[in-house]
Amino acid sequence: MTTSPFTLEALSEKLDQLATFTAPGPGVTRLVYDEHWCDAHLWLQAEARALGLAATCDAIGNLWLHDPGLMPGTRVIAVGSHLDSVRQGGRFDGAYGTIAALLLAAELRGSATPVAAFVTCEEEGSRFPMALTGVRGLLGQLVPSRCADQRDRDGVRWADALASARARGCAAEAPPDGAPVPKLFNAARQLELHIEQGPVLESMGAKLGVVDTIAGYRRVRARLTGEARHAGTTPMDRRRDALAAAAEIVLAAEALGLETGAPAVATAGGASAEPGLYNVVPGTATLLLEVRHTDDAALVRMEAALGERARAIAARRGVAIELEVQSGEAATPLSAALADQAEAMAAGMAIPYRRMASGAGHDTMAFAQDGVPALMLFTPSRLGISHHPDELTKVRDLWVAAAFARELLLAWAKDLA
Amino acid sequence: MTTSPFTLEALSEKLDQLATFTAPGPGVTRLVYDEHWCDAHLWLQAEARALGLAATCDAIGNLWLHDPGLMPGTRVIAVGSHLDSVRQGGRFDGAYGTIAALLLAAELRGSATPVAAFVTCEEEGSRFPMALTGVRGLLGQLVPSRCADQRDRDGVRWADALASARARGCAAEAPPDGAPVPKLFNAARQLELHIEQGPVLESMGAKLGVVDTIAGYRRVRARLTGEARHAGTTPMDRRRDALAAAAEIVLAAEALGLETGAPAVATAGGASAEPGLYNVVPGTATLLLEVRHTDDAALVRMEAALGERARAIAARRGVAIELEVQSGEAATPLSAALADQAEAMAAGMAIPYRRMASGAGHDTMAFAQDGVPALMLFTPSRLGISHHPDELTKVRDLWVAAAFARELLLAWAKDLA
Repeated sequence: MTTSPFTLEALSEKLDQLATFTAPGPGVTRLVYDEHWCDAHLWLQAEARALGLAATCDAIGNLWLHDPGLMPGTRVIAVGSHLDSVRQGGRFDGAYGTIAALLLAAELRGSATPVAAFVTCEEEGSRFPMALTGVRGLLGQLVPSRCADQRDRDGVRWADALASARARGCAAEAPPDGAPVPKLFNAARQLELHIEQGPVLESMGAKLGVVDTIAGYRRVRARLTGEARHAGTTPMDRRRDALAAAAEIVLAAEALGLETGAPAVATAGGASAEPGLYNVVPGTATLLLEVRHTDDAALVRMEAALGERARAIAARRGVAIELEVQSGEAATPLSAALADQAEAMAAGMAIPYRRMASGAGHDTMAFAQDGVPALMLFTPSRLGISHHPDELTKVRDLWVAAAFARELLLAWAKDLA
Repeated sequence: MTTSPFTLEALSEKLDQLATFTAPGPGVTRLVYDEHWCDAHLWLQAEARALGLAATCDAIGNLWLHDPGLMPGTRVIAVGSHLDSVRQGGRFDGAYGTIAALLLAAELRGSATPVAAFVTCEEEGSRFPMALTGVRGLLGQLVPSRCADQRDRDGVRWADALASARARGCAAEAPPDGAPVPKLFNAARQLELHIEQGPVLESMGAKLGVVDTIAGYRRVRARLTGEARHAGTTPMDRRRDALAAAAEIVLAAEALGLETGAPAVATAGGASAEPGLYNVVPGTATLLLEVRHTDDAALVRMEAALGERARAIAARRGVAIELEVQSGEAATPLSAALADQAEAMAAGMAIPYRRMASGAGHDTMAFAQDGVPALMLFTPSRLGISHHPDELTKVRDLWVAAAFARELLLAWAKDLA
């Protein structure tokens, strides 16, 4: 039996190693089932075995790192995160929670309730247009034959990409057509460590985020149609300017986010105007709008308010507007009881912490939606930068949350024994 | 000697014929030196000859339609417009002034001072990136060898396109390298008939625009740089949102145009934001801004005010801004004396007219800048639509201005005799 190197140095070194598995270019690009992802997957399996753990793949390439004596179907405390990245992302998003979980599973082997690390194959939706596919499979909710024909931007089918990863030993045998991915373990509780990806902890000098909710969102595309006219010959008071209407809506969205107050946010992420020439009053314009809130009723109210304001602006300007909801996700409460417990422990350990919501989606959402008592722990992100090569959390801060997680998981193991 | 058919029917019929010389697709696409332009050019030469006029090309394909007895270098009253169109433009822009000039030159042959029609080969800059090349040549200001290597979007050189038109009989021999296009006639006065391309005359029930100024403009590209951040995790009060800053600037431009009042206009014609995703606060944004005014000092003040407002908005939001002037043209006063005379005549003939500025550029600008006493007459444009297949002026309205021009040119011929 190997002794677990549950140390800051091991955490730092293994994060450095994991960051080497990337496509060329700035930052980390490790897309589900690609060669770099497979290299990382095999490396992780070897690391787990070196620490005395078994590494077991499921049918779509999720990985469990666990005590070799654990029988399939066992009730476990699940701790983990995802192996994939966005294109040209950072070294910490997903990777931190993965390495922390590897070390924690090794460290806590033999605890009162088994602690197993999970590593989802995919969370970001950065290769195929399906986010959270990994965790849905891990929870037995995904039927692979239904995703088989999704294609990446090079036209590669999801099923073919998975088959090539399987051939390299990164996934178990496929289930029969129409059957879901078989579940390997049952999560009695779930924990995910993750960088904050926002500026809140850093700006407050907090070292730990105790996350009790994941915000929901709605994405709405606004299409405005006015009149394209010669910009030199059309007097100001005779215009139906689609871009001017769009500009008012951008500011109305911002005002709505500010008025609603944290944790609400509202964003216009994209804008375009046609024909897009200096000398033509824009005839059409498009906006990409998003609202987020941790409370579902409030989210619905925000979406309605944004639509109402946008329609009023368009109507006043004689511009037609179409609002089309493109996607959305309900707000997901995590376990309040587990968050209370974590707060009390953090206070007892004198760790400067903050109870907070996550504005971004995470694998943990799917556990919570499946009824598993779930919690996330955040570390500060320098300047709030994420999904970018400049993503950075100090190793010391990563270690604070990992060491805290060790104590929390031990408490959980005792709770459930 | 042929009798001139100076009638509404002839005007209408010849406009219909000219509109048939177009590339396939909606509206009229007749780009300088292309096969449709050459067909139109040869047709126009033949029409002029059938009316007893001579048709003389200059070295770059401008055309003079004139009394065959007129010696080169003669002082003439020049009336005309341009033969080229924008891509998928209308049937009247340039064409109306061309056909009206053909009929007027034929009608007024033998007047006290010779009246000659000019047809510029190019005004729009729609094929090569050089607007007003035709009229600059007509006025002896253009050195063809300096434009030779300009290319259209298919990579065709200007000189090669011109040579192919010359081979079809649409241009005279090229001048020696470094020499300008030889001038054929000297304009003592100049008149251009044109559709308004804006909604003013129609909306006021006026039939005639007496144009005494052509507005100048400045085109400025604004480049904003904030911080691209995760839209879910970055609180509203911690953002440096480049698109929100751009939106404020769009509205500031609009407000500036409204406050300055007619004839001032200010337009944001284009906008974009990067990375342009729902879930990322835009890190950069670009705007295409344009201000126009008929008074040069006021134009300079507008440009300065727009820059000041844009910088203040960016500074307040912590967003960097670069403003780059892309192009500009000074405001060009036409002849106030000729405008006064035309006003008095229109009033005497009980034609509902309006003295006005042109917000768009025209060939007439170049004559006025060359010191030629110049004037434009506008006809109403349905809904102000132009540069579009839906461009429309009623034949009756076209005829009002043409008949008025006949009287005006007769008066000019007398003035100059």
